[in-house]
Amino acid sequence: MGKIKSVRFKLNTFEYEKPFHITGSISTKTTNIEVVVELDNGAIGYGEASPSFRVNGEKVEALFALEQTVNEMIKGINSKNYRQIFDITDKLFAFPSIKAAIQYAVLDAFSVEINTPVYQILGGAREKIETDKTISIGTLEERINDARRIFEEGFNVIKIKVGENLKEDIKALEKIYEITKGAKYIVDANMGYTPKQAITFVNEIYRMGIDINVFEQPVPAQDIEGLKFVRFNSPFPVGADESAKTKFDVMRLIKEEAVDYINIKLMKSGISDALAIVEMAKAANLHLMIGCMGESSLGINQSIHFAAGTGAFDFHDLDSSLMIKEKKFRGKYKTEIPYYFVV
Amino acid sequence: MGKIKSVRFKLNTFEYEKPFHITGSISTKTTNIEVVVELDNGAIGYGEASPSFRVNGEKVEALFALEQTVNEMIKGINSKNYRQIFDITDKLFAFPSIKAAIQYAVLDAFSVEINTPVYQILGGAREKIETDKTISIGTLEERINDARRIFEEGFNVIKIKVGENLKEDIKALEKIYEITKGAKYIVDANMGYTPKQAITFVNEIYRMGIDINVFEQPVPAQDIEGLKFVRFNSPFPVGADESAKTKFDVMRLIKEEAVDYINIKLMKSGISDALAIVEMAKAANLHLMIGCMGESSLGINQSIHFAAGTGAFDFHDLDSSLMIKEKKFRGKYKTEIPYYFVV
Repeated sequence: MGKIKSVRFKLNTFEYEKPFHITGSISTKTTNIEVVVELDNGAIGYGEASPSFRVNGEKVEALFALEQTVNEMIKGINSKNYRQIFDITDKLFAFPSIKAAIQYAVLDAFSVEINTPVYQILGGAREKIETDKTISIGTLEERINDARRIFEEGFNVIKIKVGENLKEDIKALEKIYEITKGAKYIVDANMGYTPKQAITFVNEIYRMGIDINVFEQPVPAQDIEGLKFVRFNSPFPVGADESAKTKFDVMRLIKEEAVDYINIKLMKSGISDALAIVEMAKAANLHLMIGCMGESSLGINQSIHFAAGTGAFDFHDLDSSLMIKEKKFRGKYKTEIPYYFVV
Repeated sequence: MGKIKSVRFKLNTFEYEKPFHITGSISTKTTNIEVVVELDNGAIGYGEASPSFRVNGEKVEALFALEQTVNEMIKGINSKNYRQIFDITDKLFAFPSIKAAIQYAVLDAFSVEINTPVYQILGGAREKIETDKTISIGTLEERINDARRIFEEGFNVIKIKVGENLKEDIKALEKIYEITKGAKYIVDANMGYTPKQAITFVNEIYRMGIDINVFEQPVPAQDIEGLKFVRFNSPFPVGADESAKTKFDVMRLIKEEAVDYINIKLMKSGISDALAIVEMAKAANLHLMIGCMGESSLGINQSIHFAAGTGAFDFHDLDSSLMIKEKKFRGKYKTEIPYYFVV
């Protein structure tokens, strides 16, 4: 078995196919950090961090500056002792996306060593998962065109970004529903509504006969009481995303009975906290979905193996790599829209 | 990779070196079920169930009658998809010790296939753990003699069974302390006290200047309010054993803030719930110990690999195999009192 010889960071910038607009943010590109873990026996593992300033407070230049520190923290530890590395890198809680990438790269190197895919190490619950695709905020016409295209491409689960304009959002939902009947909807306000707006929204949608499978993060991250208020006044399941970063966040949400769903993102939690949240959610009868930031195929690979291995998710919102331009595919998976297959 | 070809059960009876007396129960022998999982590629995995009627309501003849049913449930599933098998066998919640043995045997077969020890699949956090040894209930003289022998054998952590007679227990603690100074103590009442007796007990012990590292299950399993009352009135950490069987039990204990420690036993929880409890405890700032029923080296092997792999436990009470007569050692570990080393 191999000890960690080096951890290398590399910056990769990817352009979005078109600007990605959600509440309070428009992205045209994403700069990610590729993490390469090399063992002394030559095995190499890869991970990717896609930092989020909006959600995690992370800045890519700050994370990139940690390369030497990370080497000092984990160099010499054997990949077979991967929980030791999880414990050490859990101290990087202020930089969760790089923690995720390091933890995954170590698992990936261990996987290479023992010739066993990561999803099998994690339990091999599934070998195929279905992803949604996302309609970002735009004019009514743009939203309708996106919806039509996504539905025609074969996606059965459509994620709809809302939260900047209540009336336009309701109108958009009505029109999208007309042309995508049979689809399932995840509606994500990215903290854009007040609790009262959120309840107005779901009541209007309900009256139109539209079913929402998950209503994500209607209110600001810190407003746990507001989240709970929406949960108990919504006919649809309510989920936490920005409110649920660490396992400690999720334990609080469970104690407060604040939500029906948790959206796990490796970029918020790393592998270690994500594993904890999976187990906690099952014990508390919460449902789970898995999401992403701006990962390329290298980073989406992490979430696909995690989701297939644990088999814990009702919905997979792993479409960032489908929305950016990439020169080379880097995943240990195959894509057949709307499915991913681990290999 | 291999699909499950057969699951075979075998009865093994072991005699205790001397009768094992705890609150409300004296054991002279234990009848366990060996579970052998064979894959279609020839790999074989082993597990052991040590049923407990007192704790789990299990009867060995009832569990043994499930062999055919278990074959129907999991035959043909690939060992690499072990979380699928966990999910299916979680339905055997009324028979947790056989669930544990099946789940472990599958992991063990997978481990043989990929030539990677189980503790590494689970994270390889440690390669060495320290076990305690137990003084059962007896006359004052018997308890003192046991304490002296255990301490001389090299054990640093001593588990002391109490709960049948408050005054004798206090006297026994005082005498044991005199001849084992420097040792750590886990005191286990096995539900034998009322909440008020439990508080009298800890206060008396505290006044004698004795420190208890874990005060286990002072009150009946279902008395969660009583457990919480003891916790908040005890100078020593209070733990749940009989109150904490499934992950759902533990989630309730967390919500109620009822304890400081959880004693995980694979025989109560299986691998699946034990993994969940490990993650939940860390998120809720609870401490963990791991215990056993009447497992032989075959069953203790399961807990050693689980404990080393997760690295989650402050104390390891894995001494049943040290107290029974065994013709043949069956563990994938080495013993150097008081340590176990995974191999």
